[in-house]
Amino acid sequence: MSTDNTDSSCGASETQSTSENTSDEAASASTDKPTTDAETDTETASKRGASEASSASETTTTSTEASSSSTCGASSDSSDPASSGSCGASGSDDEKEVGATVDDFDAEPGRLVAVGLGPGQPEGMTAKARSALMDAGHIVGYTTYVELLPDEVVEAAEDIYNTPMCGEVSRTEEAIDRALAGNSVAIIGSGDPNVYALAGLALEIVESKGATASMLDFDVVPGVPAAQSCAARVGAPLVNDTVSISLSDHLTDMPTIESRLHAAAKEGFTISIYNPWSRKRRDNYEKCCEILLEHRDPGTPVGVVHAAGREDEQVEIVELAELPDLGETDLVDMTTTLLVGNEDTYVWDDRMVTPRGYETKYDY
Amino acid sequence: MSTDNTDSSCGASETQSTSENTSDEAASASTDKPTTDAETDTETASKRGASEASSASETTTTSTEASSSSTCGASSDSSDPASSGSCGASGSDDEKEVGATVDDFDAEPGRLVAVGLGPGQPEGMTAKARSALMDAGHIVGYTTYVELLPDEVVEAAEDIYNTPMCGEVSRTEEAIDRALAGNSVAIIGSGDPNVYALAGLALEIVESKGATASMLDFDVVPGVPAAQSCAARVGAPLVNDTVSISLSDHLTDMPTIESRLHAAAKEGFTISIYNPWSRKRRDNYEKCCEILLEHRDPGTPVGVVHAAGREDEQVEIVELAELPDLGETDLVDMTTTLLVGNEDTYVWDDRMVTPRGYETKYDY
Repeated sequence: MSTDNTDSSCGASETQSTSENTSDEAASASTDKPTTDAETDTETASKRGASEASSASETTTTSTEASSSSTCGASSDSSDPASSGSCGASGSDDEKEVGATVDDFDAEPGRLVAVGLGPGQPEGMTAKARSALMDAGHIVGYTTYVELLPDEVVEAAEDIYNTPMCGEVSRTEEAIDRALAGNSVAIIGSGDPNVYALAGLALEIVESKGATASMLDFDVVPGVPAAQSCAARVGAPLVNDTVSISLSDHLTDMPTIESRLHAAAKEGFTISIYNPWSRKRRDNYEKCCEILLEHRDPGTPVGVVHAAGREDEQVEIVELAELPDLGETDLVDMTTTLLVGNEDTYVWDDRMVTPRGYETKYDY
Repeated sequence: MSTDNTDSSCGASETQSTSENTSDEAASASTDKPTTDAETDTETASKRGASEASSASETTTTSTEASSSSTCGASSDSSDPASSGSCGASGSDDEKEVGATVDDFDAEPGRLVAVGLGPGQPEGMTAKARSALMDAGHIVGYTTYVELLPDEVVEAAEDIYNTPMCGEVSRTEEAIDRALAGNSVAIIGSGDPNVYALAGLALEIVESKGATASMLDFDVVPGVPAAQSCAARVGAPLVNDTVSISLSDHLTDMPTIESRLHAAAKEGFTISIYNPWSRKRRDNYEKCCEILLEHRDPGTPVGVVHAAGREDEQVEIVELAELPDLGETDLVDMTTTLLVGNEDTYVWDDRMVTPRGYETKYDY
């Protein structure tokens, strides 16, 4: 995807990483709508919304060159959509407002389903997710995940609308507009829709448009979250009471994140850290390491899973004390999930093992 | 499954609930081995272990009447395997020790894979899980989940070993023995193997037998955890930083659980409560409600999902203040998962919505 696009108001400044984020946040790019997207969205809304019956359109295809794909240049943090605050709309406030509302549509409302794809590859998808995608007429999602969809799904769809890094809000609005226009729409994301992802946003936007979830038979199809798909790569790191924390402070402030890290680290939870690092969030990563080391033994095993399921996947088990330095290596970046063990966790035969607790009661 | 079995040392005292637990713990029944299981395991181990090549056996079938299925009578808490402490071996200490060790096997070691089934129905299984099961010669698991396996998987297996409520430890040992004997074995559980489940136990037992995970190409196939599959039933309750806590104090003591509940409730995490209630753990449930109410508004939405995906599934959204009384109803029992919202969570159109945070930055 392009990073230097002078038409875009996204203000890209660095080359975008090609190893896309498999974290649950990656499937949803959060930004203000750039001019291009806003114009496209309005066009598309009027074509798909107001008085049009649902059917295929010539303006949207799976190709990223299609006019309805956003060409905004993303910031270097773009793999963590929730942190790419530098993507900003340059136009008026109108571009940030809800486009169409339910009153703009004449058609009988269609359907909207939020589908979790799991880690991304087709084998990681549940049968229910696959059939929801086969049933959907329109599929909307982040380009990287659209490109991973199985051929049969792509072929069965009437239309597929995808945007690259920026535009989760506008993309979700587009999906809802299409559903309000009478189409059967599936909006896709990696992992699970309830893990730093699209279920909440979709419902909020439906409400803001004056529609209801029931009107659209809104449904959520769960998927395997990144914490569990990454955990599987290192063995049995999680097992018992566990916490997921995202280090992205775009939507949650850092003091809150720090407080949560303290609470989790003190209590012996196993911890999954999402979005641990980016160039703009080095401080967050350093702070996180500091907090973990304050409460946990420096020898505590940590599973580090980079780009899970991708060609450049790397899986390592390190000690907590090594974590700070890893921030400056390729191993830890926006596509990494960290799995922090507790005081019982040990490493054996290249696997992390957090005992379930049976060994205190049974001999084996 | 039988509850009154005088041959069993499990000491069943109540009729077992037929609405099986879909929580991640249900797939793993933790108990001391009853006499029947121990004898069966020893027999089976000698047939399958020591010097035998892998192949089908006439002693184990998918039928629960098969001799290798445990007929121990479970306690009323049996749907929460980790809490059924009343299932006790009546024999000598020998029955609790590791049966076969790696030195007892002549054959080239086979394979062991831990497979997460998700909520239980075939549609909730990933494609990778399905193919892992199709590839496995032997499948080992809790009866309820074996019974949910798709026909094609059952037909493709050489052998299926299942036990009802009691016996997670012995069942896992059986699976490992079969793998050490040269078979390709899949051990199954609901949800994900890293969520209160079998990945950790399997690795611990492999180690105790003097084998290594690498020797068995041990792999974990992730599945959709109960927290996320239940969350999908109520909309978008989780969304941001989240915690999973089990109220079962069989393997984790109650003071620890209480401390974790306090920590989670103070910090604004959304919270998934596993194994919230059983006849023997009413106090735990009451204490949990008390702690939540200490830190959160009594009007906080809580998703209550009972027997997710089953015929007797019930899904309700209640207020935190109503939770204590629900303990004595059918809605909350061992098959229930609670999804506790945070201060931002609201109910709209019969769905729980925990905002992702975009609404503070964007107009929609």
